[in-house]
Amino acid sequence: MASPLTHCEMSQFKSHNNQLLVNNIPLTRLAQRAGQTPFYAYDRSVIQQKIDELRQTFENEASIHYAIKANPMPALVDFIADKVDGLDVASGKELTTALNSGKSPACISFAGPGKNEKELLMALAAGITINIESNTELERIIQLSEQHNLIANIAVRINPDFELKTSGMRMAGGAQQFGIDAEQAPLILERIKAASLNFRGLHIFTGSQNLNPTAICEAHNNIYALAESISASAKMPLPTLNIGGGFGIPYFPGESHLNLQPVAENIKRLNQQYSAQFKQTEIILELGRYLVGEAGIFVSKVTDIKQSREQTFAIIDGGLHHHLAASGNFGQVIRKNYPVAIGNKMDKPKDHSVSIVGPLCTPLDLLAKNMPLPTIEIDDLVVIYQSGAYGFTASPRDFLSHNPPVELLV
Amino acid sequence: MASPLTHCEMSQFKSHNNQLLVNNIPLTRLAQRAGQTPFYAYDRSVIQQKIDELRQTFENEASIHYAIKANPMPALVDFIADKVDGLDVASGKELTTALNSGKSPACISFAGPGKNEKELLMALAAGITINIESNTELERIIQLSEQHNLIANIAVRINPDFELKTSGMRMAGGAQQFGIDAEQAPLILERIKAASLNFRGLHIFTGSQNLNPTAICEAHNNIYALAESISASAKMPLPTLNIGGGFGIPYFPGESHLNLQPVAENIKRLNQQYSAQFKQTEIILELGRYLVGEAGIFVSKVTDIKQSREQTFAIIDGGLHHHLAASGNFGQVIRKNYPVAIGNKMDKPKDHSVSIVGPLCTPLDLLAKNMPLPTIEIDDLVVIYQSGAYGFTASPRDFLSHNPPVELLV
Repeated sequence: MASPLTHCEMSQFKSHNNQLLVNNIPLTRLAQRAGQTPFYAYDRSVIQQKIDELRQTFENEASIHYAIKANPMPALVDFIADKVDGLDVASGKELTTALNSGKSPACISFAGPGKNEKELLMALAAGITINIESNTELERIIQLSEQHNLIANIAVRINPDFELKTSGMRMAGGAQQFGIDAEQAPLILERIKAASLNFRGLHIFTGSQNLNPTAICEAHNNIYALAESISASAKMPLPTLNIGGGFGIPYFPGESHLNLQPVAENIKRLNQQYSAQFKQTEIILELGRYLVGEAGIFVSKVTDIKQSREQTFAIIDGGLHHHLAASGNFGQVIRKNYPVAIGNKMDKPKDHSVSIVGPLCTPLDLLAKNMPLPTIEIDDLVVIYQSGAYGFTASPRDFLSHNPPVELLV
Repeated sequence: MASPLTHCEMSQFKSHNNQLLVNNIPLTRLAQRAGQTPFYAYDRSVIQQKIDELRQTFENEASIHYAIKANPMPALVDFIADKVDGLDVASGKELTTALNSGKSPACISFAGPGKNEKELLMALAAGITINIESNTELERIIQLSEQHNLIANIAVRINPDFELKTSGMRMAGGAQQFGIDAEQAPLILERIKAASLNFRGLHIFTGSQNLNPTAICEAHNNIYALAESISASAKMPLPTLNIGGGFGIPYFPGESHLNLQPVAENIKRLNQQYSAQFKQTEIILELGRYLVGEAGIFVSKVTDIKQSREQTFAIIDGGLHHHLAASGNFGQVIRKNYPVAIGNKMDKPKDHSVSIVGPLCTPLDLLAKNMPLPTIEIDDLVVIYQSGAYGFTASPRDFLSHNPPVELLV
C-alpha cells in the first residue's frame, strides 16, 4: 500500500497495447477527441475510487468535503458534488461554481483571508457558512446581515498555537494571515453570541501536502483538544469541527502514498474520547488535492527533438505556462521531476535519457530533466502524472501568449 | 547613476501631496479611473525616457528592438512600436499583436523553441524573419515555403560555446533547448544556402536580467567573434546580428541600475574592430524587461489589517495570482521583497513593520515580509514597483478564481 513511488509506474492508470488508458480510453484516441494538445484529462473512475477508499477508511467518523480550489472545473465539481458531504470555496466565483452544482448551501463553506464585501454579501445571500478569518470580517458580516436582513452562518477559523510537522506547506502556528489566533478566540465567540449569529463551529487547518500519518495524527490530537477547550470556555457547543485536510499525494521518487489507516483509527479514538463534548459535532475532513490530484494527467505533443551537445531535448507544445508546478516553479525550493511517461509507448523499454522542455523562451520551461524514457519521436504524447490539482488554474496561461490547454473530464 | 537600490525611493516616479504620480496622475485618482483594484499601470513617460536614454547611449551603433513577451499589452506595444527599430515575438499571438501595431514585417522577428506549423505559416505569410532553433524547424520552413510559394526570411539562433556570467538566467552555453549549437551552424547555413532561403543573419543571446556591465561586454566580445567566424566560414555576410538583450533592472535591496556606458563604448569599439566584416550588418539589441519593467506598478487595495501574535498583516486584494514574480515564486530560489510603497502615503514616515499578503489560502501569497512602511489602514493603496515586465501575463490569474486585475497605459 505504501511502497515508495518510482517514476515507472503510476498504478491508478492502466495501459493496453502501449496506450495509457484514461477511464478505458486509449490516449491517442483521447487526444483526437480533445481536438488539440496540450490538454488536461481527469479520470472519473480514479476520483470515484479515492472517494470510495475514504468512505471505507473513515466510515461514519468524519464527513468528506471537497475544496474546490484544487480543481474548479465545473464538470468535475458537479461530478464530485453528490459524492461528498460538502464543498468548500475560496472566492466568489468558486461559490458560484459550488451553487451551480446543486449542492445545498447548508453544505458549502467559504474560507480565505481578505474576503471582500461583495463576496461576503454573496455568501450571506446564498446562506452558506462563512469561516471568518479576522475581527474586521466579523464586523463586516454583522453589518451586512443587519443591513440586508440576512441570517449569518458563521464558523471561526482558528490559527492554533501549534503547527503540523513535516508538512509541504505550513498554514498554522506562529504569526499567520489565516484565521483568528487561538488566544483571541474567546473575544470573537463572545461577539458572535452577542450579535446572535448562527454559530456553525470551528475550522482548524494546519498545513497541506503531508505524507506522514504520525504528524497528521498529532495535529488532529491538538486540534480536538484546542477545539474542545475553546468550545467549553465559550460555552458554545460545536455543530461542526472542520479539521482541514492536508493529506498529501506522492509526486517525487522516494515518496510513498499516505497510509490513512492510522489517521482513521486516531479519529475514531478521538471521537470516542470527546464523545461527551462533541456529541452533536460533525467532524469534517476538507480535501482538495487528495481527491483529484492523482486522477489528472497533463498531455502534450512532441513538436521537435534536438541534440544539443551531450543532451537530448524533446520540445513539447505544453509548458510551464500550462502547468507551473510541474516545472518546479510553484512553491518548490528544489526542482524535481514529476512522474512522466510517453503515453503511446507504455510498454517500450526506458532506455534513453531525455530532457523535456516546453515552447517558451526561458530555461525555466523545463518539465523533465534527464529522464529515462523510451525512444522519443515527434508527435509522441508526453504525459505528466499527478496533475489533477493545482495545474490548469494555477498556471500563467497567457505567458508568451500561446494557446491554452483544454480540460477533459473522462 | 548606479547607486544601490533602497526600498524607499524609486526615482522613476515622483510624488506630490502624499500621492504617487503616474505620468502626473495622483494614484488615488488613477484608481478611481481604473474602476477597480487591483490594477497594473504603465507610465508612458518612463518608457519614453528609457528609449531616449538608450538612443543617446548607443547612438547609431545598435538598433533597438522590443521583445513583446516582456509585456504584450496591445496599447503598450502600439506605443512602443514606432519608437523602436523592430519587434520580436515568441508566439503566433504575439506576432498578431506586432502586426496589428503597424510595424513593418521587415522589422519583426520570431524566436522560440518548438514553433508549430501553424505559427511557421503565419510567420511566412506575414513575411517576418524567423529565427530557427533546430534543424527540424528549418526543414519545416523549407517545405512550407515551397508548398505555399512564400519567401522564407531566415535568421539562425546560435547556442554558443560560452556563457554569460553573473546572469539572472543563463540561456546559452553547454546543452540548451535554444538555438543551434555553434559547431552545427556550418551545416545549417549550407542548407539555407542550398535551399535559396533569404538569409537574414544570426541571433546570439546568452542570458537575461544581468546587472554587470563587464560580464555583458565580455559576452558581446564573444558574440561578435563567434558571429564573424560563422559568417566567414560559410561565406555568408550578415544583414543582421541580434546580440540579444539581457540588460537587467534592479529589484532587490543592494542592486544598482545597470551602467550602460561601458556596454555602449564596447559595442562602438567592436563595430570598429569588425568594420570590414560587418560593413553591412545591422547590430540589434533586443530588449524586453529593460524597456518596460521600471515603467510599471501593480496597485492593490488593503482589505483587512490584522495582528497575529507578533506580526502585523495587511491583506490586499491583489496577490500572487496577479503578480507571481513579486511573491518570489517565479524563478527565484530565495524569496526577497520587491520594492513596495503605500501610494497614498508617500510622505509619511516608514515607522511600522508590516507583512503584506494577498487573498489566497496559501502561505505562498506573500508580497512583502516585515517591510518598513507608514501606518497602514484599510483602503490604502499598496504599490509594487518594477512590475512592468513579466507581471500580468506571467501570473496564474485563475488560481482560486478571483477577479483579474486590469491594465492601464497612462
